[in-house]
Amino acid sequence: MLATWHRVFAVDRFEVMAPPALDTIDMPQPRLAAIPPALEAICRQDRYERALHAYGRSFLDSAKMFRGDFRRAPDVVAYPRTEDEVRALIDWAGGIGAAVIPFGGGSSVVGGVNPEVGDGYAGVVTIDLWHLNRLLEIDRASRSARFQAGIYGPDLERQLKAHGLTLRHYPQSFELSTLGGWIATRAAGHYASLGTYIDDYVESIRMVSPAGTSESLRVPASGAGPSPDRFVMGTEGAVGIITEAWIRVLDRVRHKASRTVTFPTYAEGAEAVRAIAQAGLNPSNCRLIDAREAMLTGSHDGSRPILVLGHESSHYPVDAQMELTVALCRDFGGEPVAEAGTGDGEGGRTVAGQWRNAFIRGPYYREHMTARGICRETFETAVCWRGFAELHGTVMAAVEAAILRVTGRPGTVTCRFTHIYPNGPAPYFTFHCLPDRARMDEQCMEIKVAAYDAVTKAGGTITHHHAVGRLHMPWYERQRPAPIGAAFAAAKKALDPAGIMNPGVIIAAAGRGA
Amino acid sequence: MLATWHRVFAVDRFEVMAPPALDTIDMPQPRLAAIPPALEAICRQDRYERALHAYGRSFLDSAKMFRGDFRRAPDVVAYPRTEDEVRALIDWAGGIGAAVIPFGGGSSVVGGVNPEVGDGYAGVVTIDLWHLNRLLEIDRASRSARFQAGIYGPDLERQLKAHGLTLRHYPQSFELSTLGGWIATRAAGHYASLGTYIDDYVESIRMVSPAGTSESLRVPASGAGPSPDRFVMGTEGAVGIITEAWIRVLDRVRHKASRTVTFPTYAEGAEAVRAIAQAGLNPSNCRLIDAREAMLTGSHDGSRPILVLGHESSHYPVDAQMELTVALCRDFGGEPVAEAGTGDGEGGRTVAGQWRNAFIRGPYYREHMTARGICRETFETAVCWRGFAELHGTVMAAVEAAILRVTGRPGTVTCRFTHIYPNGPAPYFTFHCLPDRARMDEQCMEIKVAAYDAVTKAGGTITHHHAVGRLHMPWYERQRPAPIGAAFAAAKKALDPAGIMNPGVIIAAAGRGA
Repeated sequence: MLATWHRVFAVDRFEVMAPPALDTIDMPQPRLAAIPPALEAICRQDRYERALHAYGRSFLDSAKMFRGDFRRAPDVVAYPRTEDEVRALIDWAGGIGAAVIPFGGGSSVVGGVNPEVGDGYAGVVTIDLWHLNRLLEIDRASRSARFQAGIYGPDLERQLKAHGLTLRHYPQSFELSTLGGWIATRAAGHYASLGTYIDDYVESIRMVSPAGTSESLRVPASGAGPSPDRFVMGTEGAVGIITEAWIRVLDRVRHKASRTVTFPTYAEGAEAVRAIAQAGLNPSNCRLIDAREAMLTGSHDGSRPILVLGHESSHYPVDAQMELTVALCRDFGGEPVAEAGTGDGEGGRTVAGQWRNAFIRGPYYREHMTARGICRETFETAVCWRGFAELHGTVMAAVEAAILRVTGRPGTVTCRFTHIYPNGPAPYFTFHCLPDRARMDEQCMEIKVAAYDAVTKAGGTITHHHAVGRLHMPWYERQRPAPIGAAFAAAKKALDPAGIMNPGVIIAAAGRGA
Repeated sequence: MLATWHRVFAVDRFEVMAPPALDTIDMPQPRLAAIPPALEAICRQDRYERALHAYGRSFLDSAKMFRGDFRRAPDVVAYPRTEDEVRALIDWAGGIGAAVIPFGGGSSVVGGVNPEVGDGYAGVVTIDLWHLNRLLEIDRASRSARFQAGIYGPDLERQLKAHGLTLRHYPQSFELSTLGGWIATRAAGHYASLGTYIDDYVESIRMVSPAGTSESLRVPASGAGPSPDRFVMGTEGAVGIITEAWIRVLDRVRHKASRTVTFPTYAEGAEAVRAIAQAGLNPSNCRLIDAREAMLTGSHDGSRPILVLGHESSHYPVDAQMELTVALCRDFGGEPVAEAGTGDGEGGRTVAGQWRNAFIRGPYYREHMTARGICRETFETAVCWRGFAELHGTVMAAVEAAILRVTGRPGTVTCRFTHIYPNGPAPYFTFHCLPDRARMDEQCMEIKVAAYDAVTKAGGTITHHHAVGRLHMPWYERQRPAPIGAAFAAAKKALDPAGIMNPGVIIAAAGRGA
């Protein structure tokens, strides 16, 4: 793994930085000393808990952590055991003018859980939903389940498995993120097409806001006004804390087919993916990975882009669908890779298996890369097919140029599709570079700004599924129609009159108490 | 057709009421005499136009029209030719304190276009988008098209057909409704599964509100905050007038399969449909019609419920899918009907063809039935599978009892599924009765209240796709979480500060100017 990076950056050895010790980090005293007796048992103020909740999981976060900068740690970390305690914590924070940061798995890569709320608050209370992790009810006839929102991905799947069911929602953060976090941030998961977002699996949401508790009607579909759930999904904690949800679940998959196809060029691969999406073939996996990313992840030799395809069903064989999909690939110069095995087993030595392993391990490698001074970051978007070629070209060029300009030497920029739609793909970009070790986060951010400017200039959304957080706010606000922004701000004020909920996310913090 | 109703009601002959003549109807003088010179050419105040825009297309509307009651006609009917004129009309109405009713095809069956706005307004201006009917742009690569919102269904399909494309959105109102109306009311169309709502085909919306004009970013998908489009869809004109939209379109269908299956009981048919939905087979048509409705529509002999099935694709044969679907039906006692023909051709003599004809002609028959004193009304919902049997039983019983109680003699109540989901069906109910001719609308409403109470008590939504309008408001408000209702009201106030847009729909009119 590291050998690749020695080659890429022509470096013989990366000096390894040690992470700072807990007692050496720069963390001010907590500002909220007087915790009400009823809440004392669930509130923590020790350095460990405050450090653990000071950042999300982006490279920017990682770089700041390595620098020992914990000046923005929350003052209190609360672990409510019940919804009533969530309500009591929000009431307390509102009463003392403290900001509230809802915290699921803390895997945000966009500053969604970072307590950067400005100076207008008495302090910050981070509410970690760790204990709200129960399966509350299964409705087998309707293939639905009700969970508390703090449940982590593996625990949720484990509990469903006991009933022969699954949600099959696998964001890359799966092991370190929660159902409530997925819903609040509109996470995208396993499926490359059809139900890509968690949104499509949500039946009903229960949410505690400063203004009261909401629970939407649980029905399979409703045309009664704008959907309350669709309004809550994507608010990222800015209007309340999701405490429970009914979700649609699935029978476990019994039929799978997996193939890998290579293409002469990325453009031809993209045309094949467009044809697949527009034919309604709806593969569960359809990841078009450019030649360099295939090489860097050890999936392929780097000579050609690869398309990792999967079809699956709980009820019927999918080989015929796979044949149709592969046939479409051939129309655009695609050549199926001849190999044994299904390719999606754990540790599979197939191209798809190697890719899968790299995908799952990627976030864990990052810690080691940061320690070695390697900046590894990602950004993602979605764009209509008409605009894809231009977006791909200008974004790759802009980020390569920014890396050279900012760090003084070339890096790598690669692209894959994570999700596909009949009207366009969701391209996902990864870049690596060697920033100045004293200014890793500043230099990374400078490159990201160039990336975001290029993506939005080319008509892509500022985020397909990483959410808005604090990081994407300037671009998000420019892309959101101004009257709709005003409507959302008014809606937030109705639910959170004092503006204490995750300030600065989705709604600019300037609105606070105004 | 009428012979059936002679039998059902044991009546030899229905006396036919004549519709009232235009010069005899009860319509007050228009209250908005001073139309600004710049708008005079597009504003009409004659009785014909005002009468034409006084009602939607429910039986309640029809009964009031037959009574000659046009006391609530709009004062002005405006036909803007451009978006600038839409804006000028809204500005003028705001300036003089008049209410604005956006009007597409006027096919609302829930009072969505009825100028019943209370006494707080200087008058009512109905804005008919008839002239905003152009195809503006086709993006073939992305399979998308941009239309003005006032375009009617047939015109939209005709224009797409010239490009080898289709939207395939066929609500029962198709011929008499518009793209903008579909989007504003979250219409449901052709597809029994997958993209059932127009929502799933909307890429971007342009809307003129009193507070400004919004245009959402056109991308295939975005995880940036709550979706602006999902917030606009379902507002039913209460926050602005939709003037344009980008929509996803499809290649034309080349492969179809159609079958009809009968079941011993409706419950067994429902179990088969549940299995089909949960297997992910996603039929384009999956209408489970109870034995009596099959008889009344001339589709079948009334001895058994029928399930009309369709699969279709633009790209690959669907016979194998149909075989899987029919095999699931057999597991639940289903027996395929042996018959020649595809069943879905125009005027087809197959069971599915007869059903299709009755479906298309139904709304046209209604005029003749009202003239004969026959009340024909519908209501619809969606409910999770777990609750379906109870909902079906209690709703059928409640409406049959209400008809007997209110009209003094039995009527008919029948049920079909219009759309299906893995977690539940969308049952659609039709009832016929013979009300007192002097009180047709009051008696119909009394029965509908019993129906709505029963539906919502059994956990069904007040509407799956007929929208909220003015008719469903009391039940809608009870089903919507109160904090979310407050958030929507605040959002409306941001977009429509004077509360002039379609008052009383979605947001209670009491909020006006408060």
